[in-house]
This record gives sequence, C-alpha cells and structure tokens, in this order.
Amino acid sequence: MSASPASSAQPLPGAGHLRQRLMDRVRPIVIGVAGDSGSGKTTYTGGIEWLLGESLVSQISLDGYHREDRATRRRTGSSPLDPDQNRLDEAASHLRQLINGDPALVPVYDHATGCFAEPRWHQPTPVILVEGLHTLYPLMRDLLDFAIYVDTDATIRRDWKTTRDTRGRGYRSEDVEAEIQRRATQYDEWIAGQQDTADVILRIHPSRLESLALGEMNPDEGGSCHHLEVIVHPQADNQPALYFPVDLNNMNRESAVPFMLATVPSRFRGRAVNVLHVDGQMPSAALATLEQEICAFAGVEAPSGDACASADPQPTIRFAQMLVAWPILAQVAALESA
Amino acid sequence: MSASPASSAQPLPGAGHLRQRLMDRVRPIVIGVAGDSGSGKTTYTGGIEWLLGESLVSQISLDGYHREDRATRRRTGSSPLDPDQNRLDEAASHLRQLINGDPALVPVYDHATGCFAEPRWHQPTPVILVEGLHTLYPLMRDLLDFAIYVDTDATIRRDWKTTRDTRGRGYRSEDVEAEIQRRATQYDEWIAGQQDTADVILRIHPSRLESLALGEMNPDEGGSCHHLEVIVHPQADNQPALYFPVDLNNMNRESAVPFMLATVPSRFRGRAVNVLHVDGQMPSAALATLEQEICAFAGVEAPSGDACASADPQPTIRFAQMLVAWPILAQVAALESA
Repeated sequence: MSASPASSAQPLPGAGHLRQRLMDRVRPIVIGVAGDSGSGKTTYTGGIEWLLGESLVSQISLDGYHREDRATRRRTGSSPLDPDQNRLDEAASHLRQLINGDPALVPVYDHATGCFAEPRWHQPTPVILVEGLHTLYPLMRDLLDFAIYVDTDATIRRDWKTTRDTRGRGYRSEDVEAEIQRRATQYDEWIAGQQDTADVILRIHPSRLESLALGEMNPDEGGSCHHLEVIVHPQADNQPALYFPVDLNNMNRESAVPFMLATVPSRFRGRAVNVLHVDGQMPSAALATLEQEICAFAGVEAPSGDACASADPQPTIRFAQMLVAWPILAQVAALESA
Repeated sequence: MSASPASSAQPLPGAGHLRQRLMDRVRPIVIGVAGDSGSGKTTYTGGIEWLLGESLVSQISLDGYHREDRATRRRTGSSPLDPDQNRLDEAASHLRQLINGDPALVPVYDHATGCFAEPRWHQPTPVILVEGLHTLYPLMRDLLDFAIYVDTDATIRRDWKTTRDTRGRGYRSEDVEAEIQRRATQYDEWIAGQQDTADVILRIHPSRLESLALGEMNPDEGGSCHHLEVIVHPQADNQPALYFPVDLNNMNRESAVPFMLATVPSRFRGRAVNVLHVDGQMPSAALATLEQEICAFAGVEAPSGDACASADPQPTIRFAQMLVAWPILAQVAALESA
C-alpha cells in the first residue's frame, strides 16, 4: 500500500561524473576533521568514503605526529592535547607534499601499544581526509578545503572512549576515566577553540526525545538513540533543495518510530549559524531516498545498498554521515564546475 | 535550480471521488470538536471545509444550547462550562434528526450581545461539524464518527480570548481576565476529561524553538510561531504513507527558516498515543505538496490554491489544519469503501 518516497533530485550543473572528475584533478581536495580522542571523528566522515568509494579517498591520522609515546608522556607528564606536543609543522609539510602530488612518509602511532609504529608511505589520492586533535590549527587549516569539528557530549565520549580504549587499546577502565577527567580542562584550553573556524560542527548528545513525550515515552522505543546537532555556517541563498521525505502518517501507526528533525537559525560565538537537530530512529526507506538523492545530486553512482549499512547498522549514524557528506560534496562539485 | 518536491501520493483504494460519494451517502459523517471557549476550535477544523468544499460541510455550535444567557448567568452565578447548564439532550436530539436526514431548528447564542438570537434551520449535509464546550460528553460522543479535542496553552488562550471577546464580543479586558481565572478550575473539572475519548487531541503552546537554538536564536526569525502537538491514538500498522518533503538544505542557507517536526510514541492517561510536534515556519512549497498529496490520497480535487491561504495566511495553521483533516479524511474514505 505504502508508496515509495519519490526522489526529486536533479544533478547539480557540472556535478556529473564527480568521481571521474576528482580522479582527473591535479590538486586533491583536503577535508580536515578535528575533535577529541574518542569523539567519533572517523565514524561521522564514513559517508564521504562510502559515497566516493575507497579508492578515491585516503585517511591520515595526526596522532602519528605526537612528539612523545605513552611511556615518555608518563615520565614527562605532558599531554598529547597540547599542540606544542605535536609536530604540526611536519604534518603540514607532509600534507603539502600530498597536495602537490608527491607521496609522503607518514608517521604512525599505535593506540594499542602506545608506541610509534613503522611510518607508512601515503600516495596522493583525489580526496584526503585528515583527522586529529589539532586538524583545524592555523598551520593545517590553511591547507583544508573543508573543515569539520566533532564535539561529543562528555557522557557519550566517556562511554565510547572507555569501550574503545579498554577493548581495543589495552587501557584499564580506571585509567581511562582518570585521563578523561584530567583532559577536560586541557580540552577546553587547546581543542574547543577550533570550532571557530569549522565549516561544519557536529555535536552528539544523548537522546532528548523523552522531553517531547506526552506523559512518558513508550519504553520500547528509542533506547539507544543519539541527539545530533549539525551546525553549519550558511553559504548563500541560491542553494538547491535536498528533500528528505518525512512520513507524517507515522503518527497514525501503532509501531510509530520516535523521530525529531529541526532547523534553527542561531548566533553562536558571534557568527550566524544554522543548527540542524536530528534525534530518534531514521526510517530506512526515507534514508535510502536521501542517499539516492545525494548520489544523484553529486553525480556519483549510488554505492551498493549494503556497504554503508553493514559498516554501521544504526540508521541515525548513516543519516549523520549523509548530513556531513552532503555540504562537502556540494562544495566539491562547485569547485569542480568553477 | 531548486527542484519541486515530488508528490508520491496514490489514491486510497476506494477513496476516489470522495466528494461525490459523500453526497450519495444516506448517513452524514459527524465530526465533533470540543475545547474551551477561545481555544481555536473552528480555526483548526478549517482544513476539513477547505478540502471538502463548503457545500458539503455544515457547522453547529453547541453554545446555542446554553440554558441561560449572560444576563441571567450574572444573577444566578452559574457557568456555561457546567454541563448541566447546557441542554445537551436537546443538542443530541437535533443532531440525531440531522443524521436521519431531517432538518433541525438549532438555537443560536450571540456572543456579541450575550443573548440568544433567532434559532436557525439546519439542513442535513454530508459532513456535520459540531463544536462546543461539551461535544465529547457521552450523550454527544455516541453520535460522533470522529472526535477532536483542542487544548490551547493558558497563555495563548488568554491572548486569543481577550482579543476576540474585547474586539468581537464587546467584553472589557478586565472582565475577560477575571472570567479566565475563575474558569480555570471549572475547566479542569468539566472540560479537560473529554480528552480521554478523543481520537485526536490538538495542543497549542507558544513556540519552543528558542530552546533548540545554539547560543541565541536569530532574532529576526520565528517571532510569531506556535508549537503544535497533535496527539493521535494509533489505528493500525497498515497505514499508507503521507510524505512531507523536508528540505534538509535549509541548513546551508543564509535565509534558513526555523522549523521543527517530531513524532514520539508515548503513554498518556493510560493509553498508547503518538505525539506529533510541529513548530516554526512551514515552507510554502512543502505545504503545497502536502495539500496536493492529501487531496490526491483522499480522492478530492485540490481546491484553488488561495482559498485556504487567504482564510488564514499563517502556514503553520494551514499545516495544522491538514494534520487535523488528514486522519479524518482517511477514516471517512475507509468508511466509504467498507
């Protein structure tokens, strides 16, 4: 009975064959992602790789440019959050090499051992994703075509970091907890300021849908949801439309899914920004339509349907990945056609 | 550049030519709307008349069935909110006449003078809208095919009622204020309980978008917005989709419109309900698509575009009118095809 949401996407003029045209470009597109350790930086940029394909995109982590390994830091008491404890000039130099089409020997930090691993040769790719604690510091920022800042709620960051560092990196949970406390001040001093030059800020909070329930929220629903804020510095008014089909008849169904979507023009740190709020569960049909629409718009072929879903089955994360990828693809397409 | 949102509506099986089929019906469809005086009852049911056309729909106000006029009430101290101060049995009897296809001589209360005016003959129409303080009381409720309860925030009710009663009905604003205070208790005792048997509850609050701003809300936007809650008792899961196209690229525009849409499954007064939240400004292109979709779905021709807009230019109100009309039209169509 239910009609599929129709896609009304039209390719951006000049956006067709974006992949081919990215391959033909001389200068790579550089996308920087800054945020605290464990803020989900790589999760939220996953949509860019998914949409463009892995062969076009390479990732560099700035963690390799820490001056000291974990054992040394324990002796000196220095913090990797301190920009002076990172060889950002060397990182910028390597990035410049890649931008100029030359390979670069990039240092690698192994979070599992706390030691530096063998450096790896990176070949220049049409799109370079740089992620790290200081990616939007001036030395790096000048080299970025697009800057993203990921700001995760302290509660969620604690959960994620504890899970990742204890399971994947061999820390004890008490040590991770102590480190998080100590880092909070350092975070405010050295990391948070990078928001000011970001094109897009992504904030992740625990779900707030409970506050929109009447009486109490149906307890079967929405347990593991996050509340996402995508904070965008508006570009111009002649922006094309990107329609996300919201099924209003959800309200008439016994199995209604909890869901929230909002845009609020705001002033933040002295600048005009738009805040897009997303919470709850994304209906997969609408999400698929959005993905098709973004692919059609940016002139890329839709990747096979399961690739993204299998990488992260949570539709809200997929939705966030699209929301992060979308303004970047649109801007890249605009660069291309200029 | 901007593509129009595509309508994906498909007529409900059996819904085609709903108007003609309503005219051919023997028994009228009766829609009851309860709520306090000044709660905007008639505003929010305006979409039903707009969609079906005025010739098919008649309205009855239960205010004509007050036992006493204003002058008498001042002497006796009785309240029109007291169900015993209304001849609900006579109202039910008249409604039964109309349902049976006979005309009824309906009493009329003139809010401007506080006196009863000449009663008017009502002819049976395919759709009868009954509005009043006690429309969902058992005697009336049994005769209704669809029951709506309108619950307006005390702040907004005060504003509206003061404006209407002082401008349109000749009360002094101090008297209106005093009456509102006195009525609050009576409202809880006699009126609010009707929510329990409503199919749809509509609540209107001042806008809450400010709480979703980052830093502060852009002060040029959203001044006169309301926050609407449409509370629906879910029917079943085999409900068709009704897509409202939300333009996500709003977030990239300098002239972004403030906007919020949410659905939260909840438990309210012991029953499972879905709460649809709407706040901010409705983009008129998306609204037009929704109206087309509802018309196509219910099998009615789209009324001329300006009719509703001129009756109430506030798109959020138009949107609310559609949200109220939609489940009723769907249910009527289902009755028709049964």
